[in-house]
Amino acid sequence: MTLAVYFIVTPNVLLLDYAGPAETLRMAADIGADLTVTTCAPVPELSTSMGVTLSGLAPLPDTLPDGALLIFAGNAQEALDYARPEALAVIDWLAAQRGRDIRVASICSGALLLARAGWLDARPCTTHHALLDLLRQSAPTARVMENRVFVDDGQVVTSAGITTGIDLALYLIEQHFDAELAARVARRLVMYARRGPNDPQLSPWLAHRNHLHPVVHKVQDAITRDPARRWTLEELAELAHVGPRHLTRLFTRHAGIGVVAYQQQLRIARARQLLADPSLSMERVAEQCGFASARDFRRVWAMHVDDSPRTHRATH
Amino acid sequence: MTLAVYFIVTPNVLLLDYAGPAETLRMAADIGADLTVTTCAPVPELSTSMGVTLSGLAPLPDTLPDGALLIFAGNAQEALDYARPEALAVIDWLAAQRGRDIRVASICSGALLLARAGWLDARPCTTHHALLDLLRQSAPTARVMENRVFVDDGQVVTSAGITTGIDLALYLIEQHFDAELAARVARRLVMYARRGPNDPQLSPWLAHRNHLHPVVHKVQDAITRDPARRWTLEELAELAHVGPRHLTRLFTRHAGIGVVAYQQQLRIARARQLLADPSLSMERVAEQCGFASARDFRRVWAMHVDDSPRTHRATH
Repeated sequence: MTLAVYFIVTPNVLLLDYAGPAETLRMAADIGADLTVTTCAPVPELSTSMGVTLSGLAPLPDTLPDGALLIFAGNAQEALDYARPEALAVIDWLAAQRGRDIRVASICSGALLLARAGWLDARPCTTHHALLDLLRQSAPTARVMENRVFVDDGQVVTSAGITTGIDLALYLIEQHFDAELAARVARRLVMYARRGPNDPQLSPWLAHRNHLHPVVHKVQDAITRDPARRWTLEELAELAHVGPRHLTRLFTRHAGIGVVAYQQQLRIARARQLLADPSLSMERVAEQCGFASARDFRRVWAMHVDDSPRTHRATH
Repeated sequence: MTLAVYFIVTPNVLLLDYAGPAETLRMAADIGADLTVTTCAPVPELSTSMGVTLSGLAPLPDTLPDGALLIFAGNAQEALDYARPEALAVIDWLAAQRGRDIRVASICSGALLLARAGWLDARPCTTHHALLDLLRQSAPTARVMENRVFVDDGQVVTSAGITTGIDLALYLIEQHFDAELAARVARRLVMYARRGPNDPQLSPWLAHRNHLHPVVHKVQDAITRDPARRWTLEELAELAHVGPRHLTRLFTRHAGIGVVAYQQQLRIARARQLLADPSLSMERVAEQCGFASARDFRRVWAMHVDDSPRTHRATH
């Protein structure tokens, strides 16, 4: 049976919330999956987060085929956007679909539309990390879960949003079709390319941050802001309101690297940048990166880079 | 100085090629980066890969501020799309910008527009893995690089496309502003959430595939298609046209896991699915997943899952 997928967008839609999962599902169809994708809205034309306009939108369907999948993209300014009559029309329409044999999914703040239409009552769900409290207010009986890419409660699937909309779409493809098709779509999307361990273009500033733990992000933000600072574990722990031992455990588990090794990696990244300036002596580079001495700098450098700082400077 | 960013789109633009990096840069501006984003096209309104129409597009600028950044999104059907007069108008316009103090970037097949406008002559560059040969034909003197997320040649930056457009945008933010801002934007995009090592929703079918090596993908595709098969290393190596020892080295380096462990992981994922069917005996589950016996199944299972298959079945 053909899977009928409907993306529902409202004025000021966050374009990536829509385009990410929509393109992913379209590619699955292009490769041969038996599905259709339709983009619907309460009005034929609407504004987007990017300032450009989307038009040629289908109306909200009067009837839905059994097993239809409705996906609600999020918005850029949800408090304002969801008070507009077009968003209220979507909420009413969605509320009227309750009890039907359909499946409903949300990207990012799209969860707020589901909440207001009563679809999240007593269900586990999630949304973007900045909107968790707002979702709790909108659906007081929902079990709002933090730290999740998405939550699959069978009839209702909610995602953390923006780029996770793509992960959600791949998951739905795997569920409705099979894992190999999902892998082929991921490859076409060049999702493989993201932050691979051997990627020469991988930014050290973004490495080890593909987790969702807020405490670990807080500490990583502080180190990123000032990698040359001689942070003590106690200072970092205090900043994150946890004990030093707990921080060590959380950091290693979620970032997949130790605190000291993480900071060293950023210091080496900064050193690479500074070495490009020929007026800086090796001692000055070492100092500006927070190493105790040029010798200490060379020792740490050797653990990360094949050639010496001097050779690196001469050849880059 | 304000960074002026122009996204250039052509009819049938791949919506995610545009929306991914555009939203990423818009968020940087929203957080406070001194940049502007304008979406331009040779016509005020055009079709997209998703069937919907983009309108309210700015014309191709007559003049560009110094240091402007032009980003060319890719298309869904480049052979057809780039033969259209609108695409030819973009190529002419871009050719006329040569020698100016601007920077040019491409997502996916956008590299073909750069090639035809003469911007890739004698430069290192890349594009989507399906378009490498076409790019070589379009720019015979270019040094087309495979297996790269993006290639930064200073004035010209080319990316592998689709989701890597987001990585490219984060890299540009880091370059033009700073690493902390790029990390904050990544967090807002929930890019942290992608395939984290501790993510309970992570699909084992997509794990270990965030690399770009075609030989390793080929072998992973084969194992994914039939994880229960008793593949020998020699069979897999033959299928990928490499020697068994070379395959072992490539697989471990790029997938970050051994061939046998990779297959076991997929078999355990399949076993989890099969255990949901109470009519299947443990022996039958083991057999269907390619284990030599129920005992062998339990041994491998214990390395991946905390509870036993029996307890798992009873509680899931």
